[in-house]
Amino acid sequence: MHKLLILAQDKNKYRALIEEARLVNLEFATQPAEDVDIVLGEPKLIKAALGSLPALSWVQSIWAGIEPLVGPASRRDYILTNARGVFGRLMSEYVIGYLLAHERKIFQKLEAQRNNHWDGTDTGTLRGKTIGLLGVGSIGAEIARTAKFFGMNVRGYTRGSETSKDVDTYYHPLESTLESDSLLSGAKTQQQTASLQSFARGLDYLVSILPNTADTHKVVNADLLNTLPSHALFINVGRGAALDESALIEALNQNKIAGAVLDVFEQEPLRKDHPFWTTPNLLMTFHTAAPSLPEDITKLFIENYKLFNEGKPLKYQVDFEKGY
Amino acid sequence: MHKLLILAQDKNKYRALIEEARLVNLEFATQPAEDVDIVLGEPKLIKAALGSLPALSWVQSIWAGIEPLVGPASRRDYILTNARGVFGRLMSEYVIGYLLAHERKIFQKLEAQRNNHWDGTDTGTLRGKTIGLLGVGSIGAEIARTAKFFGMNVRGYTRGSETSKDVDTYYHPLESTLESDSLLSGAKTQQQTASLQSFARGLDYLVSILPNTADTHKVVNADLLNTLPSHALFINVGRGAALDESALIEALNQNKIAGAVLDVFEQEPLRKDHPFWTTPNLLMTFHTAAPSLPEDITKLFIENYKLFNEGKPLKYQVDFEKGY
Repeated sequence: MHKLLILAQDKNKYRALIEEARLVNLEFATQPAEDVDIVLGEPKLIKAALGSLPALSWVQSIWAGIEPLVGPASRRDYILTNARGVFGRLMSEYVIGYLLAHERKIFQKLEAQRNNHWDGTDTGTLRGKTIGLLGVGSIGAEIARTAKFFGMNVRGYTRGSETSKDVDTYYHPLESTLESDSLLSGAKTQQQTASLQSFARGLDYLVSILPNTADTHKVVNADLLNTLPSHALFINVGRGAALDESALIEALNQNKIAGAVLDVFEQEPLRKDHPFWTTPNLLMTFHTAAPSLPEDITKLFIENYKLFNEGKPLKYQVDFEKGY
Repeated sequence: MHKLLILAQDKNKYRALIEEARLVNLEFATQPAEDVDIVLGEPKLIKAALGSLPALSWVQSIWAGIEPLVGPASRRDYILTNARGVFGRLMSEYVIGYLLAHERKIFQKLEAQRNNHWDGTDTGTLRGKTIGLLGVGSIGAEIARTAKFFGMNVRGYTRGSETSKDVDTYYHPLESTLESDSLLSGAKTQQQTASLQSFARGLDYLVSILPNTADTHKVVNADLLNTLPSHALFINVGRGAALDESALIEALNQNKIAGAVLDVFEQEPLRKDHPFWTTPNLLMTFHTAAPSLPEDITKLFIENYKLFNEGKPLKYQVDFEKGY
């Protein structure tokens, strides 16, 4: 018999959905206990409970981001799986929505309406534009597929994988730079920059889907932003840590790029006196781009529970070392 | 030898693009003349010139809407073709853009940002929603295809055709009602309403792509709007005459539907004192949803010119009787 603890704001919703599925060998716990071997929930809440879960065998995160559970000092004697596959469509809607808001000048049209002004200015199109995806995992692949549907050219920047067929051109850091040899760190930075710059040159839209890892820290920096054309739009739906926030503020203040849409931030919620609140041409959406819908996450949990109960390898396992 | 007159604001752009194609047997005229047999241009400008074009054989409109050239008293001794096929993708971008703006609450998020408020309210999705298309010609079919890509259910209301495979369910006026027998006119209205109401019931989004014809006059009226759920959004990218403007104002003022996005109006530009300017939950885009891009239209003209020069039937011929 397995014992499941649910640690989430929506725990009643999750429990009802899981009970409906009548899974074999499964009982529910209502609080941390010695015999709980499975936890489904939010990484922060799970982290706080880890000390009271001696029999823990598997954790299913309801979010994609699992930062609180990884890192050098983290407990690693259980299998950690995160939510994947379910956010791609939501993220694609978000990205396309904001690209269209930009091209179709929907804020300007509203402003014209408020000013009683018939604004017949032509609007733009997504067709023929070039989008660059920083990170092409399951979410990036879905954004690529959607971008292709709208007739865009798609570039992808990844560590090495080239799994999405909807990416027209892939860019990677050079082979030798993947080793973390401190003697080479100067060269590493330079070579990565060169590769990133070829990726960024001429992009109409840059979208970061990068997770928060040691390798992705401030990948979107002044060099990268300065390489973009001045009409480019930057969207961050990955993690705030992948962006050098000061560099973005400077780029926007100096009109080096046309705009930015940020769903994620280094620190969330954003402090009340953060310059982002008033930076020109910056839109913020407060980490709402891809909500974890209990219906979606429960499907994923049930699929993994069946594998777990049969002793088979689980889907979407997190590598504690890599942090994703 | 054929002689082409271009009557459009962008006439120089069109001429340059057509000259590049080096079409055989084609000369250009710079003003209406006895030997002009082909006109490419805007319907209003063409209408004004019709009296000075005795040899007219073919008119290619650069717009989809050709109202000035049809109607009971119109000249009909030439072939009229309009622009089709090129607007579907632009219209789809427009419709999806405004649906996403609605679901993703992008105006509310901007308002929150202006108020220094971290607004983590969840947003909605297009997936699983039901869209109803009033009119499924080439534009409607492209919107249907795009809606399917985003996982929507698609209903289509047409006179009789069922050509798009991306429409899940078709609705039509009942057979007998298509005859314009004045004795039946009471019954006709009632039956059409019944069919329209089944089409409209439960829709999340209603999109009108109807042209301006005798049959489409105020099809979107109080009955239809009252049938929609209160969370529904109405978008008009067809023609303003298909909407009963007063009925929409009342529906929005009374929160009978959630919102409306209008690209077209009975009278354009809209008068400065029209109530639309300040109607709640109404967005206007001033006839910019699908601009006629000279590159697109010229391709279409060239294709038709080759057919014309060979004496073959042209694409996208308008039926003067039906008005589209």
